[in-house]
Amino acid sequence: MSTELDLVIRNADVVTASDRFTCDIGVRDGRIAVLGHGLPRAARELDASGLLALPGGVDGHCHLDQPMADGMRMADDFFTGTRAAICGGTTTVIPFAAQEKGGSLKAAVADYHRRAEGRAVADYGFHLIVADPTPEVLKHELPELIRQGYTSFKVYMTYDDLKLSDREMLDVLDVAKQNNALVMVHAENADCISWLTEKLVGEGRISPRFHGLSRPAAVEREATHRAITFAELVDVPILIVHVSGKEAIEQIRWAQSRGLQILAETCPQYLYLTAEDMGLHGDDGYEGAKCVCSPPPRDPENQAAVWRALAGGVFSVFSSDHAPFNYDDAEGKKLGGQAQPFDHIPNGVPGIETRLPLLFDGIARGKLSLHQFVELTSYRPARLYGLYPRKGTIAVGADADITLWDPERRVRITNDALHHAVDYTPYEGIEVTGWPVHCFSRGEMLVENGKYLEPAPGRGRFLPAGAPSLV
Amino acid sequence: MSTELDLVIRNADVVTASDRFTCDIGVRDGRIAVLGHGLPRAARELDASGLLALPGGVDGHCHLDQPMADGMRMADDFFTGTRAAICGGTTTVIPFAAQEKGGSLKAAVADYHRRAEGRAVADYGFHLIVADPTPEVLKHELPELIRQGYTSFKVYMTYDDLKLSDREMLDVLDVAKQNNALVMVHAENADCISWLTEKLVGEGRISPRFHGLSRPAAVEREATHRAITFAELVDVPILIVHVSGKEAIEQIRWAQSRGLQILAETCPQYLYLTAEDMGLHGDDGYEGAKCVCSPPPRDPENQAAVWRALAGGVFSVFSSDHAPFNYDDAEGKKLGGQAQPFDHIPNGVPGIETRLPLLFDGIARGKLSLHQFVELTSYRPARLYGLYPRKGTIAVGADADITLWDPERRVRITNDALHHAVDYTPYEGIEVTGWPVHCFSRGEMLVENGKYLEPAPGRGRFLPAGAPSLV
Amino acid sequence: MSTELDLVIRNADVVTASDRFTCDIGVRDGRIAVLGHGLPRAARELDASGLLALPGGVDGHCHLDQPMADGMRMADDFFTGTRAAICGGTTTVIPFAAQEKGGSLKAAVADYHRRAEGRAVADYGFHLIVADPTPEVLKHELPELIRQGYTSFKVYMTYDDLKLSDREMLDVLDVAKQNNALVMVHAENADCISWLTEKLVGEGRISPRFHGLSRPAAVEREATHRAITFAELVDVPILIVHVSGKEAIEQIRWAQSRGLQILAETCPQYLYLTAEDMGLHGDDGYEGAKCVCSPPPRDPENQAAVWRALAGGVFSVFSSDHAPFNYDDAEGKKLGGQAQPFDHIPNGVPGIETRLPLLFDGIARGKLSLHQFVELTSYRPARLYGLYPRKGTIAVGADADITLWDPERRVRITNDALHHAVDYTPYEGIEVTGWPVHCFSRGEMLVENGKYLEPAPGRGRFLPAGAPSLV
Amino acid sequence: MSTELDLVIRNADVVTASDRFTCDIGVRDGRIAVLGHGLPRAARELDASGLLALPGGVDGHCHLDQPMADGMRMADDFFTGTRAAICGGTTTVIPFAAQEKGGSLKAAVADYHRRAEGRAVADYGFHLIVADPTPEVLKHELPELIRQGYTSFKVYMTYDDLKLSDREMLDVLDVAKQNNALVMVHAENADCISWLTEKLVGEGRISPRFHGLSRPAAVEREATHRAITFAELVDVPILIVHVSGKEAIEQIRWAQSRGLQILAETCPQYLYLTAEDMGLHGDDGYEGAKCVCSPPPRDPENQAAVWRALAGGVFSVFSSDHAPFNYDDAEGKKLGGQAQPFDHIPNGVPGIETRLPLLFDGIARGKLSLHQFVELTSYRPARLYGLYPRKGTIAVGADADITLWDPERRVRITNDALHHAVDYTPYEGIEVTGWPVHCFSRGEMLVENGKYLEPAPGRGRFLPAGAPSLV
Repeated sequence: MSTELDLVIRNADVVTASDRFTCDIGVRDGRIAVLGHGLPRAARELDASGLLALPGGVDGHCHLDQPMADGMRMADDFFTGTRAAICGGTTTVIPFAAQEKGGSLKAAVADYHRRAEGRAVADYGFHLIVADPTPEVLKHELPELIRQGYTSFKVYMTYDDLKLSDREMLDVLDVAKQNNALVMVHAENADCISWLTEKLVGEGRISPRFHGLSRPAAVEREATHRAITFAELVDVPILIVHVSGKEAIEQIRWAQSRGLQILAETCPQYLYLTAEDMGLHGDDGYEGAKCVCSPPPRDPENQAAVWRALAGGVFSVFSSDHAPFNYDDAEGKKLGGQAQPFDHIPNGVPGIETRLPLLFDGIARGKLSLHQFVELTSYRPARLYGLYPRKGTIAVGADADITLWDPERRVRITNDALHHAVDYTPYEGIEVTGWPVHCFSRGEMLVENGKYLEPAPGRGRFLPAGAPSLV
Repeated sequence: MSTELDLVIRNADVVTASDRFTCDIGVRDGRIAVLGHGLPRAARELDASGLLALPGGVDGHCHLDQPMADGMRMADDFFTGTRAAICGGTTTVIPFAAQEKGGSLKAAVADYHRRAEGRAVADYGFHLIVADPTPEVLKHELPELIRQGYTSFKVYMTYDDLKLSDREMLDVLDVAKQNNALVMVHAENADCISWLTEKLVGEGRISPRFHGLSRPAAVEREATHRAITFAELVDVPILIVHVSGKEAIEQIRWAQSRGLQILAETCPQYLYLTAEDMGLHGDDGYEGAKCVCSPPPRDPENQAAVWRALAGGVFSVFSSDHAPFNYDDAEGKKLGGQAQPFDHIPNGVPGIETRLPLLFDGIARGKLSLHQFVELTSYRPARLYGLYPRKGTIAVGADADITLWDPERRVRITNDALHHAVDYTPYEGIEVTGWPVHCFSRGEMLVENGKYLEPAPGRGRFLPAGAPSLV
Repeated sequence: MSTELDLVIRNADVVTASDRFTCDIGVRDGRIAVLGHGLPRAARELDASGLLALPGGVDGHCHLDQPMADGMRMADDFFTGTRAAICGGTTTVIPFAAQEKGGSLKAAVADYHRRAEGRAVADYGFHLIVADPTPEVLKHELPELIRQGYTSFKVYMTYDDLKLSDREMLDVLDVAKQNNALVMVHAENADCISWLTEKLVGEGRISPRFHGLSRPAAVEREATHRAITFAELVDVPILIVHVSGKEAIEQIRWAQSRGLQILAETCPQYLYLTAEDMGLHGDDGYEGAKCVCSPPPRDPENQAAVWRALAGGVFSVFSSDHAPFNYDDAEGKKLGGQAQPFDHIPNGVPGIETRLPLLFDGIARGKLSLHQFVELTSYRPARLYGLYPRKGTIAVGADADITLWDPERRVRITNDALHHAVDYTPYEGIEVTGWPVHCFSRGEMLVENGKYLEPAPGRGRFLPAGAPSLV
Repeated sequence: MSTELDLVIRNADVVTASDRFTCDIGVRDGRIAVLGHGLPRAARELDASGLLALPGGVDGHCHLDQPMADGMRMADDFFTGTRAAICGGTTTVIPFAAQEKGGSLKAAVADYHRRAEGRAVADYGFHLIVADPTPEVLKHELPELIRQGYTSFKVYMTYDDLKLSDREMLDVLDVAKQNNALVMVHAENADCISWLTEKLVGEGRISPRFHGLSRPAAVEREATHRAITFAELVDVPILIVHVSGKEAIEQIRWAQSRGLQILAETCPQYLYLTAEDMGLHGDDGYEGAKCVCSPPPRDPENQAAVWRALAGGVFSVFSSDHAPFNYDDAEGKKLGGQAQPFDHIPNGVPGIETRLPLLFDGIARGKLSLHQFVELTSYRPARLYGLYPRKGTIAVGADADITLWDPERRVRITNDALHHAVDYTPYEGIEVTGWPVHCFSRGEMLVENGKYLEPAPGRGRFLPAGAPSLV
């Protein structure tokens, strides 16, 4: 121990994806230098007795400051979004750099860097969104960007401005295979949705509650099966994002049992929301717009299936899919200040700050273990997205991204207390057990006793990603 | 029994889809008038002792005189095709009237009637092929044609000149639902095939054996799952045609076990041919072109799965998918007289005459029962395609379409002995047990002791179809 | 038509397992002699216009006059039981001749013949119950009885006085394989039931509603899987009787999809009763005893699964499992005149007369087709139990067992109107559509316009069974 | 760092169940005191550059010095057995203390302690084998032993001297539930095995190759399903041990997907041996006796299924099931010095020393990851059997049980080089990649450069087990 430590967290009850041990954590130059008992005194000390020390969360699926078509605008930029993340125990975020149809992917990446620089307070990487896989993109841009540290990209099987044809899907998967990258798939059948939507709209069934009926589980299941087939043909792993319930889960289990590397993600909205929250049974009011996202929340039986699959190893990652649109806003859910037909409501719910507490609450309820919590929210996303071992664990050499949790604190979620820039949370009023009370990023304390310490915007650093680690 | 009988078949060992009984069959005016013992003498008599009297076969899937793109030509027209059918024990055929993209469906129907009239020796109906579901077709042509007796139509999920988009599939299924028609689906994923084909061709792997590699089972399975999803969303039955093996069967079973009305068909090529017959393991000769069809034959394990599913009730119908292309012919498999890259070989094998004997052979081998044979080859297609009770059974009031089988005759199949106009059979040299020795259509004997009696071309009548009976 | 007909049923709308046709039915010497139009006049004539002529029902699972242990007594003997059967449209019954542990099987058969002779009004066969497969039984009695026309036997995996060990099951199945007989299996795990029962009784939970909790679906599913394994090892078909719901169905489907010959039966109680009828949610009264049978009725989701499996071909036969115990009777449900703890209530419900109308009602509700009705209730049991083609169809040469149904008559079931000797029906008050109005057995009219014509007791004949026909 | 370290392992490439990091490992008083860079010098130092530091293996299933019936004798006692374990990288073993029918469980435990004390060189715990669950055992002995640190017990569904009835299984599971213990289940159907064995022996088919035919996969699958049902009814986790192939795996996956806590174990023999190794296709020599174990090894397709399930998370633990019988020994495979009929050959193969290298070899072949290796062989057994966090990881506070692996060393397995007391290994001649070159137990080096350092017999300590940690 030749040089001095900058920080020692004493008596930490450390929990990683697999282990739990009590010791002091010694930090030097933003990294964990030593774990042991009775470490020498450091410039800064914290007694963590009674708290759990978990690796800072990694949110592998969130949207920040993403330009939108049709006059919509995201409420969170990289400052407010990463501030909220940190207050929720998440120290690393991986939003998307989205190509536009007809546009360059490299240009999109440059644009997003500009949006993040000087704003982010948490460290960040970028997934790419490939919306237009031209030969230039497939042959040059993508391989080059992968080499530069963008090793995961998302493709859409729905949304007119984003969706790829089956053929394009195969081409993108092939690039991933050749260049060792990971493809994330939004799996819903576009034609089925548009066909159902036209029927509903034609019948005047336009309130938010019909959003769910326009995207039934079979639509997600079909696209999931199809995406699995593409992965099988190309012989490459994929990650199915935001899985909403048992029908898609059944497909994923089936693929996994056949030995295919089909990974999957789910999100808080599929554990806590249902179609009733959009007004399913007869409420034609517009409040339901707050919960409009895709795939849509299902019902309690599907929620139970998602919890079961989380515990059973079907899912690798648990992300927020934070998509921040104000409710009462002419550029948000009330486009132009008006209630909209369901097919014009911006899709997505905010959740970057509430992701971890909502899942943590499941531990006390016996839904999953502490280790599974760490694995799903920090360790596995760090590995999949090429950030491990810098992120995702508490181990010698890792970045000192540490969140100290009080496992017994009970908190009622209210939007007033959140740090995003969205005017609502779909989880208003839900009470959870367990809360992140202190948060360190690279050894710097950013949250103390639940209070955001207002670190300098721009302190967050870009993290070039290495190759995906699937297991 | 006030009026005289035209024909009595004595001592017939009658087999229907469910029953077996010995009696005399009395025929008047082309119909079965009476079943009983000791019927009075008739103008014409036949002693059927030792033979099985089965309802004449109904081939629910065959292509005759269908105009082809790219210089190809079918070898069989309605005369040679129905002649071959009758010599193989089939008294009713249901070929396709195919719309061209950009063309009218009604015009196609009229065209096919012209092709059939004066030529057909067996009775016939028509399925439609919907290749271009324009609003005119969906709103007017299809509903009108359904009312006129064309109650089944086929859609393709592959082949550039035929395939429908997912959206078009939904629209066509919806018309079927509204008008009580039955949709038959060719389920293979077009984009996957073209992607794999380009890879193979790009690598110079162009001999017939690569046809199978360009359409692996996963490609059929995916489209089957997708078609099932469309049927589920529209809430309408469909029939998956020419199912080739266990992966698609697994999807169909899964749908059936959930209570969906997903019907299925298979064909002789999936019981008797394998990828080896196209030269899978290293034979780059062109003989394999004789067995090129889609989906392609698989392997013995898949053959066994198809036999098992036949016996287990997964399949409703067993058809030929007769697609007659000469092998050594500038308009057939050797387009322009040349060997072709696999993706230019006309798809399809002849089989209208061999369909029944090839399946019948399975009875002696314990693969299925006599009743299942009748059900799959005559009764069920007659019901599904709206021809029952005129066709598909031996019962009072039904057309006297009766095939008398010698269940013990052993016959080695050779193309020389067949009556189609194709220059080969893929089943050359296979020996079967059981053969149709006499064949009656509407009480008229057309085959006697295996000899075709050369009835007048044009004696076959068009059969307008009623509504489908699914069970 | 040299000799005269005894009976002609005119204008019959005949329905068999596969066919439907309108004609006159000519009967001579108790058998169907001719089917045709315009048959000559006969001694007796009936105009069946507007009615459906179905083959008389075959009830392949019922208990009549079976000696019971512990002071219980069955309410129906062969007279009242077959009278009720006939009034419900069933012309053939196959009750059980039950061996006692320590007793001879042949002696049991002789005893049951004595009970039936002079009493039965319907024709009857016998299944055997093998309760004690001693070497004598396995090597001599069973093979001899099979040759004599007892080709099906039942074994129990539960009930102390009946259950076989796994080893005994294998031995009995092996005898069936060697002698071409069919084994029927009551599949519930005895040890699980006794373990759960002791727990419940130990906690004072003894009212009828706890009967269901002592035999949960998992207990039936396990034994079903085990029985399937035995059949697989011995390589012999079996029939799982009285399947109650989706868990057992899942096992059966799985076995069938693997090509095993696993047949299955269900009963009206699994379509019309639920655990609520035993008082599941809090009713500790004794009325629930009326519905105590094993396996117990489940819930609406399981009922739906049974209906779906009926339509989907999982089940081959639909039987009553008629087990007639009076409710208010010192020898029935109220043993010694007292309410009993659930584990002392005689197991079984009456249903021999209501079986057919309860299933027929499903036709109007779109649950199954007329042909499926005939198949499940008459054709398939006749084939499985070696009585076809004498029974199970309307065809030349078959016994003239014909039930004429008015498909539109609506009837409310009340015990007052039934013809069994039991003091209740569990289906009291249920209204059904369709009723058997006339009933013929071997050409003799036994019911006319719903009125029982009081034929002579003893007119029913014993039917020696041939080999089982499985398909 | 107030006190001095006893040992520092420098530059260790540490791998745990989830993490991998490079650091020095500081050991004091047999435990890991500190992990960090540049630790101060210690009394003993080792430079681990180029080696992987893994937690010492925990073998959760092995048999040592277990008294046998019928004149058999195990070749390994606690000295030779634990010596072999250590030389194979395993620092903790958990053999069985087996109750005899009619005997006391507590007495058995005392007896096994006597066998281990003064002999063991590795640390050890004990599972119990419950062969006779009398009321005394269920009510007093088991609960007391659980409190004393015996928190796992094994039950057998086969073997005459060990097997429990279904009822006894339920009783034992209930004790586990009430006292928070874990039941391990040997799942094969005893009656099926004895029935098949008698058939084979009766036909004179007695050479070792018939062992596999007497225990087909269906026999294991059935018992697995049954055990799962018991666990479901009692609502308690179980662990299915030594799973041999895909049929049992299918059952386990099914249970896991339904949310049941069904854990599973497999062993090297199911990855490396097949029925051919017992002579399946025609070899009636006696060499096959070397591979006789139960369930028997299957075929390559099943091996692949086991590898796939290992990678896919179906299995929690990978154990040896070391059952050491000499081959050429009057008390071993050649009982009385003679070749034996298959049903008299002692069941089991040796494998305590080869377990880890055989699985490690799969890493280089892409079958599983390093982390999965640690999880299956050390971490998860330590947790399941209540030894974590003392055993199963490399973390501050854990016992310094560390095995240093050279991941590239290629070793050909020969029995000459092994340290057990058995006269053969079934893996003779297999070459593996990766070998444990140094091994520490509680900071004491026991193996150096592959050389066993001959520590004092008796240094191994008994480990009382805590409650099972299932996730």
